[in-house]
Amino acid sequence: MGSSVYVINPNSSQSVTAEIDKAVSPLRSVDGPGIVCLSLTEGPPGIQSQRDVDSVIIPVLRKASELEDSAGAFVIACFSDPGLHALREQSRHRVFGIAECGVLAALTLGQRFGVIAILPTSIPRHLRCFGAMGVMVRFAADLPIGLGVAELSNEDRALSRMIEIGRTLKDAHGADVLVMGCAGMARYRAALEAAVGIPVVEPTQAAVAMAVGHVRLSQASAA
Amino acid sequence: MGSSVYVINPNSSQSVTAEIDKAVSPLRSVDGPGIVCLSLTEGPPGIQSQRDVDSVIIPVLRKASELEDSAGAFVIACFSDPGLHALREQSRHRVFGIAECGVLAALTLGQRFGVIAILPTSIPRHLRCFGAMGVMVRFAADLPIGLGVAELSNEDRALSRMIEIGRTLKDAHGADVLVMGCAGMARYRAALEAAVGIPVVEPTQAAVAMAVGHVRLSQASAA
Amino acid sequence: MGSSVYVINPNSSQSVTAEIDKAVSPLRSVDGPGIVCLSLTEGPPGIQSQRDVDSVIIPVLRKASELEDSAGAFVIACFSDPGLHALREQSRHRVFGIAECGVLAALTLGQRFGVIAILPTSIPRHLRCFGAMGVMVRFAADLPIGLGVAELSNEDRALSRMIEIGRTLKDAHGADVLVMGCAGMARYRAALEAAVGIPVVEPTQAAVAMAVGHVRLSQASAA
Amino acid sequence: MGSSVYVINPNSSQSVTAEIDKAVSPLRSVDGPGIVCLSLTEGPPGIQSQRDVDSVIIPVLRKASELEDSAGAFVIACFSDPGLHALREQSRHRVFGIAECGVLAALTLGQRFGVIAILPTSIPRHLRCFGAMGVMVRFAADLPIGLGVAELSNEDRALSRMIEIGRTLKDAHGADVLVMGCAGMARYRAALEAAVGIPVVEPTQAAVAMAVGHVRLSQASAA
Amino acid sequence: MGSSVYVINPNSSQSVTAEIDKAVSPLRSVDGPGIVCLSLTEGPPGIQSQRDVDSVIIPVLRKASELEDSAGAFVIACFSDPGLHALREQSRHRVFGIAECGVLAALTLGQRFGVIAILPTSIPRHLRCFGAMGVMVRFAADLPIGLGVAELSNEDRALSRMIEIGRTLKDAHGADVLVMGCAGMARYRAALEAAVGIPVVEPTQAAVAMAVGHVRLSQASAA
Amino acid sequence: MGSSVYVINPNSSQSVTAEIDKAVSPLRSVDGPGIVCLSLTEGPPGIQSQRDVDSVIIPVLRKASELEDSAGAFVIACFSDPGLHALREQSRHRVFGIAECGVLAALTLGQRFGVIAILPTSIPRHLRCFGAMGVMVRFAADLPIGLGVAELSNEDRALSRMIEIGRTLKDAHGADVLVMGCAGMARYRAALEAAVGIPVVEPTQAAVAMAVGHVRLSQASAA
Repeated sequence: MGSSVYVINPNSSQSVTAEIDKAVSPLRSVDGPGIVCLSLTEGPPGIQSQRDVDSVIIPVLRKASELEDSAGAFVIACFSDPGLHALREQSRHRVFGIAECGVLAALTLGQRFGVIAILPTSIPRHLRCFGAMGVMVRFAADLPIGLGVAELSNEDRALSRMIEIGRTLKDAHGADVLVMGCAGMARYRAALEAAVGIPVVEPTQAAVAMAVGHVRLSQASAA
Repeated sequence: MGSSVYVINPNSSQSVTAEIDKAVSPLRSVDGPGIVCLSLTEGPPGIQSQRDVDSVIIPVLRKASELEDSAGAFVIACFSDPGLHALREQSRHRVFGIAECGVLAALTLGQRFGVIAILPTSIPRHLRCFGAMGVMVRFAADLPIGLGVAELSNEDRALSRMIEIGRTLKDAHGADVLVMGCAGMARYRAALEAAVGIPVVEPTQAAVAMAVGHVRLSQASAA
Repeated sequence: MGSSVYVINPNSSQSVTAEIDKAVSPLRSVDGPGIVCLSLTEGPPGIQSQRDVDSVIIPVLRKASELEDSAGAFVIACFSDPGLHALREQSRHRVFGIAECGVLAALTLGQRFGVIAILPTSIPRHLRCFGAMGVMVRFAADLPIGLGVAELSNEDRALSRMIEIGRTLKDAHGADVLVMGCAGMARYRAALEAAVGIPVVEPTQAAVAMAVGHVRLSQASAA
Repeated sequence: MGSSVYVINPNSSQSVTAEIDKAVSPLRSVDGPGIVCLSLTEGPPGIQSQRDVDSVIIPVLRKASELEDSAGAFVIACFSDPGLHALREQSRHRVFGIAECGVLAALTLGQRFGVIAILPTSIPRHLRCFGAMGVMVRFAADLPIGLGVAELSNEDRALSRMIEIGRTLKDAHGADVLVMGCAGMARYRAALEAAVGIPVVEPTQAAVAMAVGHVRLSQASAA
Repeated sequence: MGSSVYVINPNSSQSVTAEIDKAVSPLRSVDGPGIVCLSLTEGPPGIQSQRDVDSVIIPVLRKASELEDSAGAFVIACFSDPGLHALREQSRHRVFGIAECGVLAALTLGQRFGVIAILPTSIPRHLRCFGAMGVMVRFAADLPIGLGVAELSNEDRALSRMIEIGRTLKDAHGADVLVMGCAGMARYRAALEAAVGIPVVEPTQAAVAMAVGHVRLSQASAA
Repeated sequence: MGSSVYVINPNSSQSVTAEIDKAVSPLRSVDGPGIVCLSLTEGPPGIQSQRDVDSVIIPVLRKASELEDSAGAFVIACFSDPGLHALREQSRHRVFGIAECGVLAALTLGQRFGVIAILPTSIPRHLRCFGAMGVMVRFAADLPIGLGVAELSNEDRALSRMIEIGRTLKDAHGADVLVMGCAGMARYRAALEAAVGIPVVEPTQAAVAMAVGHVRLSQASAA
């Protein structure tokens, strides 16, 4: 039986997948489950709208189905957790969503979590997710960095805007822990945490850590 | 400009669509918007799993796109509200989901709402929806009738089981209003209400009533 | 049996009633229930205090009692929903309150609702209502326009203040839908919506739309 | 300036008022504020319906207005807290409602409170109150004793039914503290507590204790 | 049997205890329970950190154990309520915490409570407490005055900073009642209330008022 | 710099610590952080009361202080998470509590979590914890197995009682995931899950998995 943790980036961006791969690399061990990060070829270049989220669910399920026999767990690496519940239904393995795990990890690090979103239009979608999770009592605010694609690719500009939003979440909204509201931004995590002065959760790392733990435990249990 | 209320039954069952059409018929008026009920040809015969829910979203969006110019509002007639938020994003018209509207209507009729589900596996999905709606404080319980297809088609058996579940929701869980957790069951509404003794909401009627009201108001506003 | 929707404005202001009548006019159809808007002669000129709210309940019940036989549904057209639950107890018809229906309609249009109140002293009363409704998880903020009677009658001044408050609700409190926290202001709705850029619910329209739908359905059911 | 605590029983029953007077008697001290319990002559013999609740508000306000100059605080001694917020608005003294204070006192004695109601129809009204108070997270259940007037006057029958309901609240609903959901039943409190084995709050005592404390503090502050 | 209300200040500061003693003095009556305020000799000079809170629990229990036979009730006079639940478990008397009682008293005076904390690091601790109490729906905000020890001892500076924070809680966060988030500051209460214009609760007074009421009632019950 | 995950069992039972050690053993890897499980010599044989919980906090802090330099993370292995927040304050490492992590893990496996407690007296303490965590919307119920020490040591008896309680949580309270409400019971997890038919979380495993993930990530970050 296989036991890899498959991290499915539901967009087609190889650079985002590469960034995720690098971010979760410390979670690999010589005697532990493999961690395989992959893009969804048929996914859009980025997942921005609710339509984008919904449109990748069936492809995610199809891809996961192909991987089922060699899988130990799945991670869906998009902050809208597309297909999370459908894949839980389909697979005999556990499935982790990065929005869900990112927020749960944040709950161990502060009393009120703030979220840094890329786009303003994602925020109601995030709120529905947090409502379904039942954690709105712990919610401080969710604010967008509001940069266009060109500015986002400028690393200095992107980081300085994240820091600005992080400080607003902390100072004006009372957040004492932050969650990065997207995949593929792990490289900013440490600098953001240092600048704002409160813990920052990179959600893909949070999800993969839980997935690896699960695979190790279930393998032992099955042995 | 068109102004029909399109009621999209995302499964392919013509008999369910016919039942919906009959249920909402009293909401038609000679000088009001048309109410057009239609099945999704490419939908599954019934929507039972999360995969079923997710798989109809893109077809629902495509169908709605075709209807956009003649539409005044859309109603998604499945108690899992598939595509609700994506269609809100896509269309310039208002979009009503029957789970959302059924529950909201119930909030005007009692203090704690109970839901009669068809299948036990739908219940966590319903709870995520109610959580995202932020109405769990008003929630009594959601219980399945737990009948197979054969028994469901036996009307006496189906009704008596609904009554049994309705009484449990009222007596053991404190519900003082019930929501029918699916489309296509309007024919049981009155009998169920009479037998249990608390109001029963048929969610397609609730949603179409809101949609018709909206179309009338927006037409006047545009006039 | 009668079937009119009676919209009871519990204050004695004929101009407010006229404004309501005009606002709900598009909901009338040639083959549908009548919609009759009326003032409560013995009501105060305006309902501002909790005492005002409480003092009109018995007169509302008395008026509704006179209308019971010709009624199909009642709407209480004051954003404090005076007598809502007592009238539900008294009447065999359904009763809709505009605060309740206005907020429920808003829940279909955005994830966090903001309320524009006339007076600061109304806000705790609104919050008790929203708490009893169990929808505080969806609440953004409730802010008063804070104009005196003289300024309120200046339409330009009133609208520009509503827009200012609407923008604050959106920008500082994260509201993505607004509810007008009083009856009789429908004439500002479209301009307010256009200026703030998020949906605005006029609560009397929301309540009457639900009431009309109900009467049509219950007449068909009784036929 | 006066400083009496006026305990207004908004029904006209002298025997209920006498029972309240006896219940709060230990809270009188030789150097403390007077505690004066009175019936509302124009109130109904008992307050059972929402209409009863609403109909006593204006008389309560009128009575309180007469007492304003000699008052230090008001207690409204009916578990539906009629006129609580209107009286707070009207009076320059603090106003305590027994439902509010009874529940707040219970929150210091257990983690989940159960309520013993007289009538089933009171329960949605209680839930709206607890929702407005924002304490539904601590709520276990509210169950009616469901006795007719004749049986209620049979003390053995009334007590044994309260004990039965109290045990159900504890065993089936997880309550670890009980609130008596009406005034005038203080004579059963100790026996009920002993029989069920969890604390029982008599709400008039809870409210008057808070009122007395407030009067003492405000007199000192004014001195 | 004894019946004193013991107010345990778990820090060793005699001046804080003296301030508490003065604050609760109006609650003493010639025929009522004694109110004895005492410092915990082995406590820290002030309770600032979670460690401080946790470190005084066993000493509080030990002190209360010595006082058990002469006690009628205990009040723990620190806004983190150290040992509240352990003492409830240990003692046959009722135990009141000032954070719990201060917030509960505030719920009778406004719809959204704001808290004035001394230190920013106390705020997550307060939020955990309010979450465990289940009252976060009523919570406006908790803000620190952020003064060093030297500035705190400057009464004018301390009061003006409290007023500034109180106004922010009211104006920016919608608080309509304030709770002083520490013991030993009763002397500022009236001035703060006057300056901010909304009620201010001094939590030790709130707790001792409830304790005195309880002792009077339980003595009568035992008599 | 050290990087061990220290799992502190705050009771003195070596057999419980041995059970924990075995339970978390699959989370060890040859190139990962050490996982060291230890008993608190000065702890009580078992932690049952709130006093027990509170009394071990200072010893936990002292022990953790000794281990600080060689630690990468701490896990507090008692379902009341004693000292969780004080240790977070004291240590520069992350601290995980098994109640917190067990519940958070459960939120990824079902929509409503049920808890199997050992003692009835622990339940209000658990509820306060879940309330402070803000997850009560997801809570189904918490029920005690209610066995004495003698019966608990009978493995067949203990397991059959857990299964019975697990089934009640599922069937009567709607739980679709269970959390074992204590440390040291990992050996029953698989059998319980198989018998009840819904996922069962062993909380020590959940916490250590998160801790190991964190240490790996922070070491890489520091490298």
